[in-house]
Amino acid sequence: MDKRRDAVTIGLDFGTLSVRALCVRVSDGEELGAATVPYEHGVMDAVLCAPSGEIPLPPNWALQSPQDYLEALSAVIPAALKTAGVSPEQVIGVGVDFTTCTLLPTRADGSPLCLEAEFENEPNAWVKLWKHHGAQRFADRLNEIAAERGEDWLVRYGGRVSSEWMFPKIMETLEEAPAVYEAADVFLDAADWIVWRLTGNLTRNSCIAGYKALWCGGYPSKEFFRALDPRLGNVVSEKLPGPVVPVGTRAGVLDEAGAALTGLCPGTAVSAGHTDAHVAAPALKIAEPGRMMALVGTSTTLLVSSEKYVPVPGVCGIVKDGILPGLWGYEAGLGCVGDAFGWFADNCLSPALLDEARERGLAPVALLTEKIGAMEPGECGVMALNWWNGNRNPLGDGDLSGMFVGMNLTTTPVDMFRALVEATAFGTRLIIENLREHGVAVDEFMASGGIPRKAPSIMQIYADVLGMDVRIAGTKEGPARGSAVYAALAAGADTGGYDTLSEAASHMGTDPIRTYTPDMARHTVYDALYRDYLTLIDYFGRGGNDIMKRLLNLKRKTVHGRS
Amino acid sequence: MDKRRDAVTIGLDFGTLSVRALCVRVSDGEELGAATVPYEHGVMDAVLCAPSGEIPLPPNWALQSPQDYLEALSAVIPAALKTAGVSPEQVIGVGVDFTTCTLLPTRADGSPLCLEAEFENEPNAWVKLWKHHGAQRFADRLNEIAAERGEDWLVRYGGRVSSEWMFPKIMETLEEAPAVYEAADVFLDAADWIVWRLTGNLTRNSCIAGYKALWCGGYPSKEFFRALDPRLGNVVSEKLPGPVVPVGTRAGVLDEAGAALTGLCPGTAVSAGHTDAHVAAPALKIAEPGRMMALVGTSTTLLVSSEKYVPVPGVCGIVKDGILPGLWGYEAGLGCVGDAFGWFADNCLSPALLDEARERGLAPVALLTEKIGAMEPGECGVMALNWWNGNRNPLGDGDLSGMFVGMNLTTTPVDMFRALVEATAFGTRLIIENLREHGVAVDEFMASGGIPRKAPSIMQIYADVLGMDVRIAGTKEGPARGSAVYAALAAGADTGGYDTLSEAASHMGTDPIRTYTPDMARHTVYDALYRDYLTLIDYFGRGGNDIMKRLLNLKRKTVHGRS
Repeated sequence: MDKRRDAVTIGLDFGTLSVRALCVRVSDGEELGAATVPYEHGVMDAVLCAPSGEIPLPPNWALQSPQDYLEALSAVIPAALKTAGVSPEQVIGVGVDFTTCTLLPTRADGSPLCLEAEFENEPNAWVKLWKHHGAQRFADRLNEIAAERGEDWLVRYGGRVSSEWMFPKIMETLEEAPAVYEAADVFLDAADWIVWRLTGNLTRNSCIAGYKALWCGGYPSKEFFRALDPRLGNVVSEKLPGPVVPVGTRAGVLDEAGAALTGLCPGTAVSAGHTDAHVAAPALKIAEPGRMMALVGTSTTLLVSSEKYVPVPGVCGIVKDGILPGLWGYEAGLGCVGDAFGWFADNCLSPALLDEARERGLAPVALLTEKIGAMEPGECGVMALNWWNGNRNPLGDGDLSGMFVGMNLTTTPVDMFRALVEATAFGTRLIIENLREHGVAVDEFMASGGIPRKAPSIMQIYADVLGMDVRIAGTKEGPARGSAVYAALAAGADTGGYDTLSEAASHMGTDPIRTYTPDMARHTVYDALYRDYLTLIDYFGRGGNDIMKRLLNLKRKTVHGRS
Repeated sequence: MDKRRDAVTIGLDFGTLSVRALCVRVSDGEELGAATVPYEHGVMDAVLCAPSGEIPLPPNWALQSPQDYLEALSAVIPAALKTAGVSPEQVIGVGVDFTTCTLLPTRADGSPLCLEAEFENEPNAWVKLWKHHGAQRFADRLNEIAAERGEDWLVRYGGRVSSEWMFPKIMETLEEAPAVYEAADVFLDAADWIVWRLTGNLTRNSCIAGYKALWCGGYPSKEFFRALDPRLGNVVSEKLPGPVVPVGTRAGVLDEAGAALTGLCPGTAVSAGHTDAHVAAPALKIAEPGRMMALVGTSTTLLVSSEKYVPVPGVCGIVKDGILPGLWGYEAGLGCVGDAFGWFADNCLSPALLDEARERGLAPVALLTEKIGAMEPGECGVMALNWWNGNRNPLGDGDLSGMFVGMNLTTTPVDMFRALVEATAFGTRLIIENLREHGVAVDEFMASGGIPRKAPSIMQIYADVLGMDVRIAGTKEGPARGSAVYAALAAGADTGGYDTLSEAASHMGTDPIRTYTPDMARHTVYDALYRDYLTLIDYFGRGGNDIMKRLLNLKRKTVHGRS
């Protein structure tokens, strides 16, 4: 136990623009210090900054440089140690999480193809960031063929594979840059690539493999891949080496190169990679089934684990060891939450509200959020469908759009904003009820992210709509802190860490800072409104009236016709 | 014909806040001069300004003073003559139009009860302005009983009598101030009362009698009125003396009192009263069947005449001699047009649009109107139902509300405004198609009012949606000029006027100042969108989904529960 007293782990959270390192005391979870270092080239979405010069990129592309990751990494750990007043010797483990699916092709030794002169001018050789959307047509083809063939794994992904995932991105490379595909010995996620750089061991973590690479004990069949493209028949055996290991596994220890890169001691434990959202659970003391973590931000991700596998329709993914080791992880979400609130505040204001926001120095969205707190359910007279970015779950349809109904001459932007917030709460309730109806327990709702901390009015609406306590996560450092907890698990009790995730989470996780309790009278009003919400979902979202799609198609055709 | 050369008529247009007098040359319709005089007490909607002091009024009340009308009248004609450089001897006729139903109780000699000491403190003794809305519960009772009894006249009013009309207002007086009802020898509209003051003859014009007092050759039966209230059994014989005469009839000539009041010559012809909207037709040279006049403003009124009577459902009123003498008048409308545009510009703006409007010194609604002119049908990606004030026709349902569908993160307020404008065009098309389907021809569309003159983009949308030429009325003085045309008809050819309305209209009416021609490619796109509009109407407006009513009821209950 003496070992544990001074032991520290480091959580490394690779975000879209920067990497953050957080030093956490293993004994009690105290955050001792942190540092953030941006990637030199950030997101390359207009031009690729190749050594030879700038290369224009097609629309919807988003690339990154692996060299940026390593440079940021080598700076961020010493900076965090310094801030924390921690010596490398105290560090017993490192955990890594990353945006996913953020994919790159490498040689057999892990060296990125894009750093070779032959490929540096080929965009497909670089890291395709999670939000690279160039592969939509390949995702469409993949979905079509999987559905035709009746692939049994498709149900685990709500019947639909996203263009952001691994195989559409690989298909794009094969089609557009066959030489890159040919030269690549390995395609893997950046999380696993970083772990490889640190330890010398090539592993693939179960979260990314399961949610983004169609893995479930194994990958889809050769026949399926051959149906996508004859050249892909051996993609798994030839391009995806390395064992898939459950999240929380010790992937290895820092080798000499990894120690040199980080300034830490050789032999320090390194945990398998994880996804930046999913990794946060133990930072909130969530290590058991039935406890839902809700990341409420521009979009909402809902994560809950269960001991059993049930083929729930209308989710994003069902993955063994996907969120927590040893459990089936269920992921679903709303594609447009904070984004819809932001759109509203940018587009639906009265001059009076705008003046008030300016006078009080508030962002309009903050003013609207404050004002809806004074209202009762039903008072706004308006109902919305928050599908400004399509519906992710349960409908899985990006071509759906937003709706408002109920306005009269006394309706204000505050009324409409309240309806929009309520729509996101109804959408959350729908996903939870869908899980429960199929036998996946959801007993707790732990909200994390910017909106839960900043918007009490919104969280009270969520509690009233869900009829459940809404707990607010006790840390803003969910991902980095979650990685630090996994690092303590990878280190194990022998070196001062923990042998189970539950134990690590209970010592190193945080309690909620606040709980919103439902008002059951309001919940009853919302029960009635929710029935109307379901009716509208059926009508606009499930084929009752496909007007949203017709409007979108006509808009595309018209705008296309002009250009 | 010499007589005609110098002949002038005066159109008197009694509006909500003032009376306008327009001097028009009979031979060619030249507008020689005009004057406007406001009513001293305007609209009394918060307090009644009784001689003894101010008396608070209930919500939704709107009263006026008959003395104000006479004082304004005695000032406005001399002022108009002076401006026009016209002598009283040149004036061969006077025409009167008024807001309707604007009702007052009088003694048998026409003296208003509210001017008597006994009744001056009783609000029900004063003029109830058209927009007095205190009688809703009486309208509800009347509609219920009429429907129960299967009254055959109900179909002529789209199945629904408005609280603004004559009998609900009389029922309210009977219930709340029985002494006023008892003392009243006459209830009549202010238009007819003014004609009575001018001529000494009590007449009731067919437009107001037909559209606002359920008259069609006769009134509803005694049994019906007795079913409303036993005391109303003889309301027609005891309280509604005076013949109903077709519009365009000479009601009489100025008597000594009328001449004294106006400064005109005794013996000058006075035409029967008319409604301020309907009277405008001949000012636009409309005196024949099938030519629709559209008054597009805060709301839209659509008026067309036919030689035959057809019981068209979903209109406001079907009245013999209702718009033009000798023809059946069909009236229908949209309850929320400019009002919806105004609401939108007050509530759905981006900071950028607001800044641009301020910089350019434009009202936001004018800026939005300008910007939608650059768009193609379908480009906005949004569809709306413009029912912010309920749906007047064809649904006749004040509890319906507004809707927007199709928004995504790229949608702008300009897109939504375009959809709102298109919704009013679709609603206009629906009314026209409904008339045609039932055999009422609509061959021409003549738009009048503020929006047609100020908003070319909106009128082009109307032309494209309707697939018809949209003509813009050549005068802003529709009502006053229309009354002047009717005055020439009342005067007759013998005194320099005309013997037929067609003849009078062709000489004194105006040609359109502009015509918007439909682009048939755009019309085809709108045909497809219109089908979606019809689907949404059925769903939200015809019982497919009564969510608008549930939202409204819940809002009322919630707001009521707080107060």
